[in-house]
Amino acid sequence: MIVILKNNPDQEQLNNLINWLKTMGMEVNISKGTTQTVVGLVGDTSKIDMDLIAALDIVEDVKRVQEPYKKANRKFHPEDTVIKVGDTQIGGGNLTIIAGPCSVESEEQVCTIAKLVKDAGATMLRGGAFKPRTSPYSFQGLGEEGLNLLREAREQTGLPIVTEIMKAEDIDLFDDIDVLQVGARNMQNFDLLKVLGSTDKPILLKRGMMATYQELLMSAEYIMSEGDPNVILCERGIRTFETQTRNTLDVSAVPVLRKLSHLPIILDPSHSGGKRDLVAPLSMASVAAGADGLEIEVHNHPEKALSDGPQAMLPDAFATLVENLHTLHEAMGKMKPIN
Amino acid sequence: MIVILKNNPDQEQLNNLINWLKTMGMEVNISKGTTQTVVGLVGDTSKIDMDLIAALDIVEDVKRVQEPYKKANRKFHPEDTVIKVGDTQIGGGNLTIIAGPCSVESEEQVCTIAKLVKDAGATMLRGGAFKPRTSPYSFQGLGEEGLNLLREAREQTGLPIVTEIMKAEDIDLFDDIDVLQVGARNMQNFDLLKVLGSTDKPILLKRGMMATYQELLMSAEYIMSEGDPNVILCERGIRTFETQTRNTLDVSAVPVLRKLSHLPIILDPSHSGGKRDLVAPLSMASVAAGADGLEIEVHNHPEKALSDGPQAMLPDAFATLVENLHTLHEAMGKMKPIN
Amino acid sequence: MIVILKNNPDQEQLNNLINWLKTMGMEVNISKGTTQTVVGLVGDTSKIDMDLIAALDIVEDVKRVQEPYKKANRKFHPEDTVIKVGDTQIGGGNLTIIAGPCSVESEEQVCTIAKLVKDAGATMLRGGAFKPRTSPYSFQGLGEEGLNLLREAREQTGLPIVTEIMKAEDIDLFDDIDVLQVGARNMQNFDLLKVLGSTDKPILLKRGMMATYQELLMSAEYIMSEGDPNVILCERGIRTFETQTRNTLDVSAVPVLRKLSHLPIILDPSHSGGKRDLVAPLSMASVAAGADGLEIEVHNHPEKALSDGPQAMLPDAFATLVENLHTLHEAMGKMKPIN
Amino acid sequence: MIVILKNNPDQEQLNNLINWLKTMGMEVNISKGTTQTVVGLVGDTSKIDMDLIAALDIVEDVKRVQEPYKKANRKFHPEDTVIKVGDTQIGGGNLTIIAGPCSVESEEQVCTIAKLVKDAGATMLRGGAFKPRTSPYSFQGLGEEGLNLLREAREQTGLPIVTEIMKAEDIDLFDDIDVLQVGARNMQNFDLLKVLGSTDKPILLKRGMMATYQELLMSAEYIMSEGDPNVILCERGIRTFETQTRNTLDVSAVPVLRKLSHLPIILDPSHSGGKRDLVAPLSMASVAAGADGLEIEVHNHPEKALSDGPQAMLPDAFATLVENLHTLHEAMGKMKPIN
Repeated sequence: MIVILKNNPDQEQLNNLINWLKTMGMEVNISKGTTQTVVGLVGDTSKIDMDLIAALDIVEDVKRVQEPYKKANRKFHPEDTVIKVGDTQIGGGNLTIIAGPCSVESEEQVCTIAKLVKDAGATMLRGGAFKPRTSPYSFQGLGEEGLNLLREAREQTGLPIVTEIMKAEDIDLFDDIDVLQVGARNMQNFDLLKVLGSTDKPILLKRGMMATYQELLMSAEYIMSEGDPNVILCERGIRTFETQTRNTLDVSAVPVLRKLSHLPIILDPSHSGGKRDLVAPLSMASVAAGADGLEIEVHNHPEKALSDGPQAMLPDAFATLVENLHTLHEAMGKMKPIN
Repeated sequence: MIVILKNNPDQEQLNNLINWLKTMGMEVNISKGTTQTVVGLVGDTSKIDMDLIAALDIVEDVKRVQEPYKKANRKFHPEDTVIKVGDTQIGGGNLTIIAGPCSVESEEQVCTIAKLVKDAGATMLRGGAFKPRTSPYSFQGLGEEGLNLLREAREQTGLPIVTEIMKAEDIDLFDDIDVLQVGARNMQNFDLLKVLGSTDKPILLKRGMMATYQELLMSAEYIMSEGDPNVILCERGIRTFETQTRNTLDVSAVPVLRKLSHLPIILDPSHSGGKRDLVAPLSMASVAAGADGLEIEVHNHPEKALSDGPQAMLPDAFATLVENLHTLHEAMGKMKPIN
Repeated sequence: MIVILKNNPDQEQLNNLINWLKTMGMEVNISKGTTQTVVGLVGDTSKIDMDLIAALDIVEDVKRVQEPYKKANRKFHPEDTVIKVGDTQIGGGNLTIIAGPCSVESEEQVCTIAKLVKDAGATMLRGGAFKPRTSPYSFQGLGEEGLNLLREAREQTGLPIVTEIMKAEDIDLFDDIDVLQVGARNMQNFDLLKVLGSTDKPILLKRGMMATYQELLMSAEYIMSEGDPNVILCERGIRTFETQTRNTLDVSAVPVLRKLSHLPIILDPSHSGGKRDLVAPLSMASVAAGADGLEIEVHNHPEKALSDGPQAMLPDAFATLVENLHTLHEAMGKMKPIN
Repeated sequence: MIVILKNNPDQEQLNNLINWLKTMGMEVNISKGTTQTVVGLVGDTSKIDMDLIAALDIVEDVKRVQEPYKKANRKFHPEDTVIKVGDTQIGGGNLTIIAGPCSVESEEQVCTIAKLVKDAGATMLRGGAFKPRTSPYSFQGLGEEGLNLLREAREQTGLPIVTEIMKAEDIDLFDDIDVLQVGARNMQNFDLLKVLGSTDKPILLKRGMMATYQELLMSAEYIMSEGDPNVILCERGIRTFETQTRNTLDVSAVPVLRKLSHLPIILDPSHSGGKRDLVAPLSMASVAAGADGLEIEVHNHPEKALSDGPQAMLPDAFATLVENLHTLHEAMGKMKPIN
């Protein structure tokens, strides 16, 4: 951490600051220049509050040098995290394909789609039972009944289930759900994160539409600091000025998060593009960038879907896409490492 | 609502669409051009799901003409909403000044500051008991004890209390709190909004850092559609590319929201600027733009504040600011209307 | 074009509007609802100024249905544009690799790098002679001498040259340059675009850091409307809230621009990421998304580069990357089409 | 400047770096921690290229502590700059009101409006002769003839003229123009800036739609480093996610730029809001935030304006607004200073 002082700082206040930093266990280095004095802190600064220092009269600015997250940080955990889910795993070279409808609508719907995506090569089933919708007048999901229909589809296909939890007090309803998803709008619902962290469930954490990588990792840190190490990071598109797409998929998230963290990384090409014909090219780009997997919406009757119909792929197109993705993934496996 | 069709749409599908729209109570007008056919819908479209229509094969795009919110909409409620809180009111020409520390830290701290801001002219007291923090390692607030200290400060000063609620299951703890605040990160925590809507409390709803005006109004609609009409809109700065300020205060929110909605509008110059010396000019700008009030952080020892110290004003500076704001508010009262 | 009227529009003004629209060659359809009247225009609206209509007292809003660009529009030019440059071509299934240093620094530097990238498989040479720099105190490029050094490198390797032109009055200096590049900051330097449009040169048009797809295509339209059809669109990263990357590469630009336009699309993974180790994954993602080619910075001594050193690849790494890209491009060629 | 090294940096490379920095006149301080080593540079770093250092293998990150601009920096020029224009001045406590049509359309139009805005209290006349338009099919301005009509209007009213220059080679046409405006899209047209800097004209420099304060000041620095100290900064709205306004006026620019720089600051409420009824509240907010003046579009027949009609005020409304602004400006003068 670097503390930049105002010109001619009051010497007594400066001494107080330095002494306080030393009692916090910091080693303190001072660079006095003609126009600017800079104080460098060496040690574990993750528990020093930048704001406290920035509030001092003698301080012009404070810059952080170390990352404020530890458990999610690759520096302290160099090995890739691999998460076992049922018979499959996320990370470790596996290409995870999570597919299914946006919302669970009926037993017939979810079981039919589950079988279709399984046959096409999906490794997990997605489907929303509790749905965050921007309008109170839109379909809000089947709730508990939706969870039961997902269980039925798992029973019939063997596919593990991924589904969204929206509030902490529902946690018991999700007891046997395989992967709990946190939606983009809840990425900073810290109370929910803490409750999830007290389980040992795999948590698929979606990046907020305008969250930075560091904010995403701090939310992962919330879960991990409560004891659950099984966090899967999910990039699902960020808000930009472009209006022709719903959101803009940020593929740079893959190599950057890979470097900063050891957690597996999944991309969601359906929500980011918001349009069916963008799903295939964005899926290809994600895998080529090195993603551990994809979450894709598939529907057999998208024109009747109760939410997000325009972005759902048809089962046939999805099957071809999975085939292409495996061709790509194999080709990737043969590529030469770049130093 | 306007539905733009693809070139040469399948006639049968088009007929199906038109018939379905008519059964939904819509009047349907078709404009056939040489290159483009456009279908115009007339009637109450707030319950028609744009996504369902956009998912159809024959549809290129759908544009909404009417706003999707009704209870928050000035068109259906032309009179300004005025909200009574204790002996004061928000809206109706009153200049509301909500002031106090970011976090409640101790009885001595909150009661001292409460008295100082009351003497300076504040009409309500703010203070955080439950604190949303981006790091799990930062101070998370005193919780229930913090609420008790706020009650004590109210007892001593008579100022009504504004404080943040972070999760729905805490609702009973806030039974006698005057105004419940929803933080920017929770603006789309729909489960929380629904529970708040089932009370009759005044709710101060903060705009998310990247939310549009329409999204803010849809979140107000969530509360209002459950029965609570007492929503106060709060602009607190949006995320932009500027790094010299924490966020960018959007003063255009005042005249635009005033036109779209009948709800009162408060601005928060402390969180938006993130720096003490920006609070005064941003407060002046907000009142000059027509805001119904301000929420301002004040601390007697900002260098010891457990959160957000750099943006807290000192009590003396705050007192001068309130004086200046009243001078401005009076001058505004004498201005000529502009047609 | 759709014109949404205010409630109870003045009938005389409405008649005037309708008559004027008819004299402009529009077919006019009116949908009268109980709360809203909507006027639909059918015909060639590209020369009707939305602003003129929006300024009318009786108008609430105007929405465009047709794209405002014509020559760049795939609807009026369904075949992909393929641009011949020397012995190579851009588009038409070819994988264009433009590589070289950010700035031309010396004959030795540019010729050495030119040979290295040619051997590695580059199809064209890039290098900046005129450099747009945010600081007046930074290296501004070698100017005319830089162009001569590029010519020398072309002489030695046979690689066609791509280099940036910054101002219209320099046009004669670029007489025998193969491809003229327009930088992101000049995307809306309309005078420059017009002068370039009066040549028959291939123009590589970089998307502004916050430009929408439509704005990029309108800038292409500026060039094309002056007579030059040889425009190459280039996505080079957009500004987002992320600070760990210089910009965020928008790979969705590939499928979306492909649909809207017939012009070839190149991606620049060097400027977008701003870091050497992001170039390979972003290049792979770009080609997997369907890009026609890449523009990549390569330097043999990046620590001595006079600009943008941190993002330049080393020649060896670049050679491996090109090999991998060809493996990917071939794999892509075998993929099944998705309906 | 702070250089953060990678873990275990190569000692020889580190020594080379340190020696090089010393030859550049820097004082070098090294803070060695257990996990991180930080090198602090003290001295004039404005000519040290961050990129060069960041490109080194041993460097993880470089952070700038000092601002990279000097002539525009308040630290080196503590007094406010006041710019004389004809009989009036910009800055120094004066409230500058620049008003007029978006485009010059005819002698009758510009002279009529000039007289109306002068009578209403405007201190300078604006009007576009060369117009940057996003579509090549839109009206591009009257060019030289437009400049002559502005001269005629100046002759008749005595108001100094503000008008936009779009390209460097036009500079001679602007010989007797009072203030030359640089449009937002040209803020980083560095060749234009350099040519303007070689004159002694007042230059009104508009902030780009997504430019940071530092980028704006660097563009001012381009002009000033060529010798012209007469730069006026102009905030005209930034691009945000909001679609109900054309752009979002950033009033924080006033206090922040005031602190960073000594140059006068003008706000443009017409382009930012993009709607006539936003001009008055945004103008009030700007003056209350401490702006030195405003640039406002006024038109007597906005429905016939050849560009930007929807945002032009009517002359009567403008006259009332100017009256209100003076009431506000006077009230501001009586306010107590806040420490």
